[in-house]
Amino acid sequence: MRIGLLGHGTVGGAFDALLDERADEIERFNGRRPVIAGVLTRTRGQFAEILDGADLIVEVMGGLEPAREYLLAAMRAGRHVVSANKQLLSQHGEELFQVARAHDVRLRFEAAVAGAVPVVRLLEESLAATPIERIHGIVNGTTNFILSEMARGSTYPQALAEAQRLGYAEADPSDDVSGRDAAAKMAILARLAFGAPVHLDDVPYEGIEHLQSDDMEYARELGLGLKLIGTAERRDGGLSVRVYPAFLYAGHPLSSVSGPFNAVTVESETITEITMSGPGAGGRQTASAVLGDVVSVMTGGARPPAEPLALTLLQDVPSAFYLHLDVADRPGVLAGVTQALGEHGVSIRSVVQRGLGAGARLVMVTHPIAESRMRAASAQLEASADVRSAPRTIRVIEEEFG
Amino acid sequence: MRIGLLGHGTVGGAFDALLDERADEIERFNGRRPVIAGVLTRTRGQFAEILDGADLIVEVMGGLEPAREYLLAAMRAGRHVVSANKQLLSQHGEELFQVARAHDVRLRFEAAVAGAVPVVRLLEESLAATPIERIHGIVNGTTNFILSEMARGSTYPQALAEAQRLGYAEADPSDDVSGRDAAAKMAILARLAFGAPVHLDDVPYEGIEHLQSDDMEYARELGLGLKLIGTAERRDGGLSVRVYPAFLYAGHPLSSVSGPFNAVTVESETITEITMSGPGAGGRQTASAVLGDVVSVMTGGARPPAEPLALTLLQDVPSAFYLHLDVADRPGVLAGVTQALGEHGVSIRSVVQRGLGAGARLVMVTHPIAESRMRAASAQLEASADVRSAPRTIRVIEEEFG
Repeated sequence: MRIGLLGHGTVGGAFDALLDERADEIERFNGRRPVIAGVLTRTRGQFAEILDGADLIVEVMGGLEPAREYLLAAMRAGRHVVSANKQLLSQHGEELFQVARAHDVRLRFEAAVAGAVPVVRLLEESLAATPIERIHGIVNGTTNFILSEMARGSTYPQALAEAQRLGYAEADPSDDVSGRDAAAKMAILARLAFGAPVHLDDVPYEGIEHLQSDDMEYARELGLGLKLIGTAERRDGGLSVRVYPAFLYAGHPLSSVSGPFNAVTVESETITEITMSGPGAGGRQTASAVLGDVVSVMTGGARPPAEPLALTLLQDVPSAFYLHLDVADRPGVLAGVTQALGEHGVSIRSVVQRGLGAGARLVMVTHPIAESRMRAASAQLEASADVRSAPRTIRVIEEEFG
Repeated sequence: MRIGLLGHGTVGGAFDALLDERADEIERFNGRRPVIAGVLTRTRGQFAEILDGADLIVEVMGGLEPAREYLLAAMRAGRHVVSANKQLLSQHGEELFQVARAHDVRLRFEAAVAGAVPVVRLLEESLAATPIERIHGIVNGTTNFILSEMARGSTYPQALAEAQRLGYAEADPSDDVSGRDAAAKMAILARLAFGAPVHLDDVPYEGIEHLQSDDMEYARELGLGLKLIGTAERRDGGLSVRVYPAFLYAGHPLSSVSGPFNAVTVESETITEITMSGPGAGGRQTASAVLGDVVSVMTGGARPPAEPLALTLLQDVPSAFYLHLDVADRPGVLAGVTQALGEHGVSIRSVVQRGLGAGARLVMVTHPIAESRMRAASAQLEASADVRSAPRTIRVIEEEFG
């Protein structure tokens, strides 16, 4: 099995090394030995020549172009392909899947989502026969590390600096902390779980940059943990895919996932729920997922996703909310706030009030309410004279909610 | 894809119903429709006739014979097979694998271990290229439910009765509570992870029947949770596979797994660790795993395990131990106990002593020590006049241990 390797950075180099270590074992198991027949980098190799000498193309170069062009050309030439490219899959997935189907080649991309945690295979293969209702995922290790540090008392800037020092965050962390990286991964998982085409641009996302240390403190008081969650779920005959910081009750399978880890929970009436967790990134972990895909292709692995189904993508779904208000500490304020909320249909589940000098903090958890209505209620509160700074809202995932 | 279904009990019936629900979707995805062409029960069907009319045999009848005979005959006739039979796989696995290899047919058995949690596929496929160092698993949902109830204050008989009432434990629960069921599953996982043949009889197991409520209380005090753990790990060039109740530190990925759930953690230098969890049993969950295997066969899935490797199976490996002693409350007792332990090389990591009427409780956690030496030390203590009832020992899995 001759491999053409496109890209030789952190993941490509780790893949090269890992393949070297494991080639004997793979040959023993599969009867064929995988070898790297050609490598393409910015300064080395010609794509056409590498393609000619390869049975399988492994793409770990990243970016949209020329990765897209190379993968399409490889599949049109009858080559199987393995990619770790979440940006490409979440923006040009349907085109790639269509060409893979048309040329009857394998297209594997385990490493594009959740590092070494084989959630793509779980959805494509183990649960291929299972009707899935919902996926909740922690699919960005950088933000999970930062939130874990904040839960231990760090401020956001301190936690980000620590993540950068340890190599968990890049110098420009915006793709991670904005939620955009997680949105790309959720678009891919949603396509696999629900069969509908989901483009990165279809996934509304909210990041963690605006979170405050005292949100974490109230969370502890309420018995909640704060995570950046990606959700993909069936709702009212449609599909909702979104990324947002959320409070999780302590019993939730994702609430105990700490540090630079990824985890995904898949819910279905048939199986109740399955959770997988593991390290979210790292060159060697990602390389391990890529090599797993290579072995999968060698043994015949799963076909590319079928023709897409039509499912309406919903943009405004109900959530329970945590609402943090900095209010004047005078009689009637709570009554005014609850009345404003009530006008938008927001009903309150629990409330904590605490005096603080001349002001007070009101911390509430609401019953589920459409996000648009919560936003409208929040805007009305912000305009009120009793409310002294912008209200802060964070979604809450409750056990009984769904 | 014509399926011959052997067995139509809880799992067989659920499989039949689930296939009916999902056949359209499977056909859409794979181009072929799975149909049940024949069913064998004690009162219905002829095996030879069912075999003739089937492309694939699904065995959910359980027991060793005639399940073994039927599966061997099916593979020799060139049929792929899917089995949920952990007893058969753990006792006649090598024979089945050998015949599957010889006749180049698929042999899938996801449902034999950990219900709907696809740990067989994780080991056979996703991690096929990864050198695995250790597996820790909670692979029996019945005992995990009982221990969860005991952690909440129930006695063992109360927790067992509750498990029986809810259908999590059978009227005769001995296969579960003795650890034998878990041992069968660990034998199968060890074969997949390490390539060495492991027979059920090779796996020493210890159950949960002897656990006392006050062990759970001391555990809470020490910040430990009590689980029935299966371990398969490389050690000193050999392999150790065993099942035993163990205390886990709160940070361990398995410590938060409660109720009738299964979970497996796979450790490897390459991937750090991956944990999968989900419901451990239930007809519909098991049927879902069986159907996943059917789909896997339809798409070409993984080959049967390769020729076995030779690895020495170790029977006596070191563990840290919790040691509970009921002693006379008089001067010099602790000194006598520590001296007796020291004679067997047992060194103490932490100790709690508590007066209790005329006696006292000594609760210790040791540093890792070979199990045989701990047993010898325990026997010597039992013979001492200062020790008033049989010492109780429970293994401890520590973070730094390994």
